[in-house]
Amino acid sequence: MSGNSIGQNFVVTTFGESHGVALGCIIDGCPPGIALNEADMQLDLDRRRPGTSRYTTARREPDEVRILSGVFEGQTTGTSIGLLIENTDQRSKDYSNIKDLFRPGHADYTYQQKYGVRDYRGGGRSSARETAMRVAAGAVAKKYLKQVHGIEINAYLSQLGPIKAETIDFNEIENNAFFFPDVTKLDALDEYMRDLKKSGDSIGAKVSVVATGVPVGLGEPVFDRLDAEIAHALMGINAVKGVEIGDGFEVVNQKGSEHRDLMSLDGFASNHAGGILGGISSGQPIVAHIAMKPTSSISVPGESITATGKEAEVVTKGRHDPCVGIRAVPIAEAMLAIVLMDHLLRHRAQNMDVNSSTPIIGMR
Amino acid sequence: MSGNSIGQNFVVTTFGESHGVALGCIIDGCPPGIALNEADMQLDLDRRRPGTSRYTTARREPDEVRILSGVFEGQTTGTSIGLLIENTDQRSKDYSNIKDLFRPGHADYTYQQKYGVRDYRGGGRSSARETAMRVAAGAVAKKYLKQVHGIEINAYLSQLGPIKAETIDFNEIENNAFFFPDVTKLDALDEYMRDLKKSGDSIGAKVSVVATGVPVGLGEPVFDRLDAEIAHALMGINAVKGVEIGDGFEVVNQKGSEHRDLMSLDGFASNHAGGILGGISSGQPIVAHIAMKPTSSISVPGESITATGKEAEVVTKGRHDPCVGIRAVPIAEAMLAIVLMDHLLRHRAQNMDVNSSTPIIGMR
Amino acid sequence: MSGNSIGQNFVVTTFGESHGVALGCIIDGCPPGIALNEADMQLDLDRRRPGTSRYTTARREPDEVRILSGVFEGQTTGTSIGLLIENTDQRSKDYSNIKDLFRPGHADYTYQQKYGVRDYRGGGRSSARETAMRVAAGAVAKKYLKQVHGIEINAYLSQLGPIKAETIDFNEIENNAFFFPDVTKLDALDEYMRDLKKSGDSIGAKVSVVATGVPVGLGEPVFDRLDAEIAHALMGINAVKGVEIGDGFEVVNQKGSEHRDLMSLDGFASNHAGGILGGISSGQPIVAHIAMKPTSSISVPGESITATGKEAEVVTKGRHDPCVGIRAVPIAEAMLAIVLMDHLLRHRAQNMDVNSSTPIIGMR
Amino acid sequence: MSGNSIGQNFVVTTFGESHGVALGCIIDGCPPGIALNEADMQLDLDRRRPGTSRYTTARREPDEVRILSGVFEGQTTGTSIGLLIENTDQRSKDYSNIKDLFRPGHADYTYQQKYGVRDYRGGGRSSARETAMRVAAGAVAKKYLKQVHGIEINAYLSQLGPIKAETIDFNEIENNAFFFPDVTKLDALDEYMRDLKKSGDSIGAKVSVVATGVPVGLGEPVFDRLDAEIAHALMGINAVKGVEIGDGFEVVNQKGSEHRDLMSLDGFASNHAGGILGGISSGQPIVAHIAMKPTSSISVPGESITATGKEAEVVTKGRHDPCVGIRAVPIAEAMLAIVLMDHLLRHRAQNMDVNSSTPIIGMR
Repeated sequence: MSGNSIGQNFVVTTFGESHGVALGCIIDGCPPGIALNEADMQLDLDRRRPGTSRYTTARREPDEVRILSGVFEGQTTGTSIGLLIENTDQRSKDYSNIKDLFRPGHADYTYQQKYGVRDYRGGGRSSARETAMRVAAGAVAKKYLKQVHGIEINAYLSQLGPIKAETIDFNEIENNAFFFPDVTKLDALDEYMRDLKKSGDSIGAKVSVVATGVPVGLGEPVFDRLDAEIAHALMGINAVKGVEIGDGFEVVNQKGSEHRDLMSLDGFASNHAGGILGGISSGQPIVAHIAMKPTSSISVPGESITATGKEAEVVTKGRHDPCVGIRAVPIAEAMLAIVLMDHLLRHRAQNMDVNSSTPIIGMR
Repeated sequence: MSGNSIGQNFVVTTFGESHGVALGCIIDGCPPGIALNEADMQLDLDRRRPGTSRYTTARREPDEVRILSGVFEGQTTGTSIGLLIENTDQRSKDYSNIKDLFRPGHADYTYQQKYGVRDYRGGGRSSARETAMRVAAGAVAKKYLKQVHGIEINAYLSQLGPIKAETIDFNEIENNAFFFPDVTKLDALDEYMRDLKKSGDSIGAKVSVVATGVPVGLGEPVFDRLDAEIAHALMGINAVKGVEIGDGFEVVNQKGSEHRDLMSLDGFASNHAGGILGGISSGQPIVAHIAMKPTSSISVPGESITATGKEAEVVTKGRHDPCVGIRAVPIAEAMLAIVLMDHLLRHRAQNMDVNSSTPIIGMR
Repeated sequence: MSGNSIGQNFVVTTFGESHGVALGCIIDGCPPGIALNEADMQLDLDRRRPGTSRYTTARREPDEVRILSGVFEGQTTGTSIGLLIENTDQRSKDYSNIKDLFRPGHADYTYQQKYGVRDYRGGGRSSARETAMRVAAGAVAKKYLKQVHGIEINAYLSQLGPIKAETIDFNEIENNAFFFPDVTKLDALDEYMRDLKKSGDSIGAKVSVVATGVPVGLGEPVFDRLDAEIAHALMGINAVKGVEIGDGFEVVNQKGSEHRDLMSLDGFASNHAGGILGGISSGQPIVAHIAMKPTSSISVPGESITATGKEAEVVTKGRHDPCVGIRAVPIAEAMLAIVLMDHLLRHRAQNMDVNSSTPIIGMR
Repeated sequence: MSGNSIGQNFVVTTFGESHGVALGCIIDGCPPGIALNEADMQLDLDRRRPGTSRYTTARREPDEVRILSGVFEGQTTGTSIGLLIENTDQRSKDYSNIKDLFRPGHADYTYQQKYGVRDYRGGGRSSARETAMRVAAGAVAKKYLKQVHGIEINAYLSQLGPIKAETIDFNEIENNAFFFPDVTKLDALDEYMRDLKKSGDSIGAKVSVVATGVPVGLGEPVFDRLDAEIAHALMGINAVKGVEIGDGFEVVNQKGSEHRDLMSLDGFASNHAGGILGGISSGQPIVAHIAMKPTSSISVPGESITATGKEAEVVTKGRHDPCVGIRAVPIAEAMLAIVLMDHLLRHRAQNMDVNSSTPIIGMR
């Protein structure tokens, strides 16, 4: 596979450029008999959609998804599901200023060198706009996981620059434009973002994602461990520079007696492992964190070069998110959902009865 | 693929349990015409091998690898390469005490639940002993990358518990049993490890890995970005709980103007990105870091349960590494080598002339 | 992968039902820098298109393909190519008569049993209408193969029922509605088809496909030999029941001294092997033949059963090809092109210089 | 994957050259909890083994397979299964006469051109000796299919040169050295083979393989239809030049009214389709046929060329099968078993309850 697919049994393949005709994807391997319609996906697409708050880009895209195949009379048929989102807000503006310019921190230079040609309009394929299709496909996975297995997946912004969430209230996440679980910090966030916008700069962020209700047994040792596959899926989101499972980098200075999660007949006493042991889900909540870099699309001038071998100063104007971490929240959920869905099917393939993966031994 | 393979064009598939008959692997897709013999692999196997210093497990395995196919008259033929390491130090001891016991922090419980059966001897397939084959396969990739493309890969221990390397001297890494690049800390490390052994506990660590000489253009957007694939490979190493590319989690509190690597005709002014932009190698050194958890095999007692539904106290005696991070150094190199090798071939498949991926535009 | 993809480095994934909203596909791995537009595909789509002669179904579909991504300013960019054909002639007729009926010889029964649900309109996903996307993707491969490597692929109808082509004139194939290479048989074909239509029955056919200019070296032993991959691709065309390479089933009664193709410095003396030795292309023309069954959509009554467990008589009326082999000609070309394209890229991945696969040794 | 693997969920990867150190394979994805030991494989290995009758090559290899991993206390654990057969009869003879010679009809020329290097001893990787590992892996699949699902797979020689089986008595197949189901032809076969040996020539053959007890629902449209996958697996056997499903090439001159298998509540009235409709198993026996070319290793002189660009006459002496079709019988069974096993797991992945694939609708 040449890079635009993810998964082995639940396979998502995407296409589309930021300012091309349309974005699309094919979901191959979705079980038949699941109720599905566009509204199931639209909710998450709207959460990711630009232009919904003053903290994100002003680009306005309705991002309306259409199901083109694989669903008949309201339910999946087991055949490949085609999804399409037409690009509507492709301002036919003049790109001559960036056509030959390699914006620092972007993929302009690497795409040009890799392929010898690139669609420079809005970043082309390297634009985060591509993630809209991941969110759509992830919504299908989320629906199945929840409906058939009771698995729920929720992400939130756990840190924006210096501002950390100190309490995690899942009920608050959808109540604010930051997907932030600590309401005591909302004013600070608002103020921080206003100052940031004035300065024309951007900021990094940390996003956390949690899956509950995951049965014991998902993950395929040794290379396709569940944690390895989650790392692959999350690091593959634009702007992500780090992935942690459970305690993540805190383990570097932990003792074994401190880190290991003790077990009793009442269950695990803690969840330092983040729900994965030996690459296989343990039945505890799966917990992952990602580091999102600050976008390089800022109005602070920076030095760069052109395709014709000249030095140039870059100033990015226009519609850009000062913190791409915010809109990454539904994307992180989608990617985790796709991985869990795929591994649920992979586990099912090898094991006669997937229900045997519910804890039959030991713990209450 | 059911989990024991990694790669698309350079594919490594492994088998073997800790106390089984043998470990083995098949490398499929290695280019023909490369000089290869057992000694090429043995060097790295010896670096990973247990029993080489007082800081690692006392299990003694010669770990002698044999090439069974794919090499003729000293060079690769393009056909699949079979590698084998026979297990010699499988002490036929009595395992009845751990047969039904789920050691906390180990994969005992999850393997049992996933498969309904497990080889409990020494952790079976979940043992880090399995990584010997990754090191052997990685050595093949390393040789090719260095010989044909001048790519070099070096890993080191950047932190052990509270002790951080403050200077990185690549020349010192192989001169001490810790693979530590900061000689001023060697005494502190020695003392820390002696105290740790006395306490019967273990400690986490951070390992860093760097590849130099990587051409521009490796990595396949969007899901198989080079950083996503590196994350997959490194998170798939036993005990890894976090992966960073470049600045990693430091980006959370970075500004865009601070993070982006400016460019001039003299090249990049910095390498916050860790050598990857938009999922594609930029020609700068590729830099990754991993967090290694402290092993759960410690003599400090801990609560657990048995397969028959009873609570039990676990004390692990015997031969175990107090810091598994040390021996992870050659494993991290091997995994990065496998990923780069695979992506070199994938890039070559799609692009008419791989040499076009050397920087033809712009920078000196 | 769950079945809707073909290829490893040049990957084609399709979606779409006969009477759904649209058909589509994603081509992943197409090399960058190739000139491509809709017209390149439309020619072959028109050759496959129904309603073009009195010998094929009267269903009228313009089958206009749109490129949605992966092409910029007239050339491929190396990113995934999205293609779409909207269904226009989906007569919103009453399907209640076939909703619960399993037409004999069709996939109705097996789809229902496999998935528990099916889109019964026009056969849904099992309709040969799905092959339109294969033809579109194949046209991309054909263009690349011809332009970059001088490889040409031509198929023809070599037999229709009892009427065999006895001379093969490639120049005549496109001059008649049968894609038949022997003009002396055209009147007989016309008469045969008229009689067949009157009887309401259908007939089988044999299609042959030849690729010239294929370099030595394509094919990956041992499982993905070029002949095995061609067999996979051709047997995967609707209604195909047999695949031959070179002499095919004639070898059963051949002697070794008769079958083997002798070599001299002037080249091979014959081509019984059909251009493939040991699963690898030999530089000779690649020759394959397929057997196409007669369609089961006929007006001759036949016994069957219903989903509710009753026996029923089936009479298929409406727009159907009396010989599906005719329209299979461009499909066979497309499938062979996809396989050759994929193997060209796979070969290139492993071998430093694809040009080394041109005959450097021996023959003139 | 680079060619040495087959399957998606039940994956078999092989290595080994004819005169190398050993042959081996890894089975990845075998369900846990299945009783397995070496004897399960040895039976089929012995059926394929050379030197067992005067009709096959005199090379004597015990072909003793060892299980190296994935089996614990007599049952599979769900981890990868490593298998090994050491080569013992590698006569260290002088190969200088064939080192630079391209034997006509063999893979010598294509391997040399593809890889630039080859193991010329006994054909190296292109030798049919490689199929021993397929037979071993196939035996694992056969055992699972029979034990868990009651699926049985039997192949036989249906034609040897001009001599066709006219009655198919499955009970006779294992009673003669030809795997021939028609005892009335055994004398004729014996006489034919004696004459053939005297002439130093070889002959083609046809092998048929039948699977009974296959549930409805196996096969993944559209590219990985069950028939397409069977064609891939069978055409991938050395010397195969044609594959048929059901009536195969006879369909070319069949009418639709003749070919389609009518259905009643008593089941299908015939099996022209060979047990597959729309690429999905129908519950009827799966029937396939393959054409095996006559081996090119004959003592009849033939013209060829050398790697140094000279013309040469080739006479193959030594131990060779005059009809490779005979020993292909267990190989064909193995390949069909691997395909069915893989598709059973693939089907199970997507469908909640694999038992739903037993005929719940309609027929008795």
